[in-house]
Amino acid sequence: MHIKLRSIPGAIVAPKGFSTGGIFCDIKRLGTGKGSNKGAKRDLTLIVSEVPCSVAGMFTTNQVCAAPVKVCVPRVAKGIAQAVVVNSGNANACTGRQGMKDALEMVRLAEKALGIADGLALVGSTGRIGVTMPMVEVRSGIAGAAKVLGSTPDHAAQAAEAIMTSDTRPKEIAVEFRLGGKTVRLGGICKGAGMIQPGMSANGARPAALPGGLHATMLSFITTDAAIEARGLQAALREAVAHSFNRITVDGDMSTNDTVLVLANGLAGNDKKSCSGLKSKDFATFRAALQHVCLELAKKIVRDGEGVHRVVTVKVSGARSIAEADAAARAVANSALVKTSWHGGDPNWGRIIDALGYSPATIAEDRVDIGYSASGSRKVLWSLRRGQPTKASFRDLCAAVAPREFDLHIRLNLGKGEALMYAADLTEEYVDFNKGDVTDPGSLGG
Amino acid sequence: MHIKLRSIPGAIVAPKGFSTGGIFCDIKRLGTGKGSNKGAKRDLTLIVSEVPCSVAGMFTTNQVCAAPVKVCVPRVAKGIAQAVVVNSGNANACTGRQGMKDALEMVRLAEKALGIADGLALVGSTGRIGVTMPMVEVRSGIAGAAKVLGSTPDHAAQAAEAIMTSDTRPKEIAVEFRLGGKTVRLGGICKGAGMIQPGMSANGARPAALPGGLHATMLSFITTDAAIEARGLQAALREAVAHSFNRITVDGDMSTNDTVLVLANGLAGNDKKSCSGLKSKDFATFRAALQHVCLELAKKIVRDGEGVHRVVTVKVSGARSIAEADAAARAVANSALVKTSWHGGDPNWGRIIDALGYSPATIAEDRVDIGYSASGSRKVLWSLRRGQPTKASFRDLCAAVAPREFDLHIRLNLGKGEALMYAADLTEEYVDFNKGDVTDPGSLGG
Repeated sequence: MHIKLRSIPGAIVAPKGFSTGGIFCDIKRLGTGKGSNKGAKRDLTLIVSEVPCSVAGMFTTNQVCAAPVKVCVPRVAKGIAQAVVVNSGNANACTGRQGMKDALEMVRLAEKALGIADGLALVGSTGRIGVTMPMVEVRSGIAGAAKVLGSTPDHAAQAAEAIMTSDTRPKEIAVEFRLGGKTVRLGGICKGAGMIQPGMSANGARPAALPGGLHATMLSFITTDAAIEARGLQAALREAVAHSFNRITVDGDMSTNDTVLVLANGLAGNDKKSCSGLKSKDFATFRAALQHVCLELAKKIVRDGEGVHRVVTVKVSGARSIAEADAAARAVANSALVKTSWHGGDPNWGRIIDALGYSPATIAEDRVDIGYSASGSRKVLWSLRRGQPTKASFRDLCAAVAPREFDLHIRLNLGKGEALMYAADLTEEYVDFNKGDVTDPGSLGG
Repeated sequence: MHIKLRSIPGAIVAPKGFSTGGIFCDIKRLGTGKGSNKGAKRDLTLIVSEVPCSVAGMFTTNQVCAAPVKVCVPRVAKGIAQAVVVNSGNANACTGRQGMKDALEMVRLAEKALGIADGLALVGSTGRIGVTMPMVEVRSGIAGAAKVLGSTPDHAAQAAEAIMTSDTRPKEIAVEFRLGGKTVRLGGICKGAGMIQPGMSANGARPAALPGGLHATMLSFITTDAAIEARGLQAALREAVAHSFNRITVDGDMSTNDTVLVLANGLAGNDKKSCSGLKSKDFATFRAALQHVCLELAKKIVRDGEGVHRVVTVKVSGARSIAEADAAARAVANSALVKTSWHGGDPNWGRIIDALGYSPATIAEDRVDIGYSASGSRKVLWSLRRGQPTKASFRDLCAAVAPREFDLHIRLNLGKGEALMYAADLTEEYVDFNKGDVTDPGSLGG
């Protein structure tokens, strides 16, 4: 479905009735500039709506699941929320009972500071794994953040900064579109960088058969002034995430904290009932807009992945099933040898067909086509047809894989299964960044 | 079973009746020194026994399987062979009908040059994928190699060199032991470096349920003067590979060419019948010796993996099943974040428990123990017990992961499943090496 979307400023405060702000409260205990919201990078934010919202969420399916995720799942299931408190610097993962206590204290403090009803705040955390939350700092942070709330693009930018860890830049988007005769807005922020191959579900439950390699912390917070019931919102989010955040990989590692939350406060005044019917035109419009926002945010995560130089869209078609197409795309997208060849600008089809061959997908070597195109283009330069090298020149193939972004086309020619992955190269910078600084105890990543 | 093994020189020619030699025939078509066996690295070898041998083999389960593997599988199934021709520089993989024709020509030329019966030669190849064999060079190479055969340690060293690709050093071993009252010898050579996570079976067929991530080219050629029937030899090799070559990973990529071959010529004069009964003491002795040789060769591959600085033995116990233990060990051994932390000397348990959490194995966060010991030691320094950080100091933990080799102990405490993997760190050198040289078309790797 094609809908008309207009880009607007303001990210998560572009929709009516939302405010936010970010503050530095020294969650990493660097011991400098505490309580200030200048200088050091912000590490805590509040996002709040004037009125209670319909809410939907998708969460990591990692069996090791952080306390904030455990707090959110049952709250989101109730379908109503009004605010989110988010911190970076500490993931509150593998922190046992104290972690749960701290996450619950965070939502209670947020509810109190914002003057909203009990049970209506949600929480997200990212940063070190296995270190308990520095609650002295967090308490002062929540109180401080509540005092700097506002609804300007600058406020949204503060929030986008406060959720960053190894991200090199804040990631935000907002769009405006017509829905049921009204103008509605949809905005979002996200963070990613490393430990990125989300595989999220609505309740953290793993699917019966796990896809090839569900495996970052990615956090995304999306707001809208559309009126839509929670059930419809969840259905739209589940589908949007399946086509966006769950289709990206930086390093193949799935985090303990992956979370996407959407708050819909209805202040645009469209007809809520009409937008909530899964077969209605309004729902289709909203779903398309949400999918656009999720996909743009997801791509920003891959582009800003740790040490990433090149982003490759791996498009597999002709698999025996969608599950096999997904498995084939993930095997290629996560192969160390394929990823290093992308980094080198090397159109190496041998490593690609090797990865296809060991993937759980069925392949027939003499049916495989491999080619390249510019991002989104259908003009493919084939390097392999039916398992045999084409006459495409090495020079032309190198030119096809030289851009910072390109599409890799793989046709298995065995069936109708299709899948794609937004993948990244593997660079010396990724290794250098992640080999860590052993003078700094504590695990980054959740 | 503990048996007394004595290290001896001579590798594959240590056993009676074997001869070998290596030559440079310019398979990569560098255009220099052709026909010489001095100067440039050797790239072709012949290994031959005075008499026909019992033979056993294990081969890649990659669906994209190179021509030499396709030629070997039915020949090995007949249980008898006398020689092997091996080249480096070209994998003869993804080379279609021409590839099969070339591989068959190679075995025929070897049989003729060595004066052995039709059908008794085998072939192994490693190097570029997708480039047809330079048969002019290969023909002169086989003829040349047949003229330089001998049975000194220097000849074995030539063979070990001729099978190298990105290996930095030749890998060889030989042992002597008593079997049925006779002294027998077992020797081997191997190569590895990148595209290393073998998952081999006797006929290349994939197991019904694929383990977590079967995925290098590794080649290994083993000779013995023990007398043993082919069936017993295959049973012993299958078990030895399951505990050695199929338990290593450098980069998680399984090659199109992985091959292990064992030739047993019986010239030691032990009682063949007694050694071939799967329940006999002699068989148990031979099996233990073969397992030792395979494991030592497999470890050499990990230690000499591309860019490898550290080798980590990942020991998982307490899984619900052996398959779950294997999946857990492979998830940890192949996690980019875990591997980079090893490179950095960072005792980061957060990344380890994260990888366990997204692995197909069932885990309970509050039951997981993670610790380190010196290689082969039972004195474990625990960093995590029952999901909680221990009081072990960060300094002591750093010291535990500082050596070039150490053991990582993971107890899931849910059952009795155990598995281990010999794994490697991920370094800038790996990335730099594999990002390739786009001035050199053609795919290294098979």
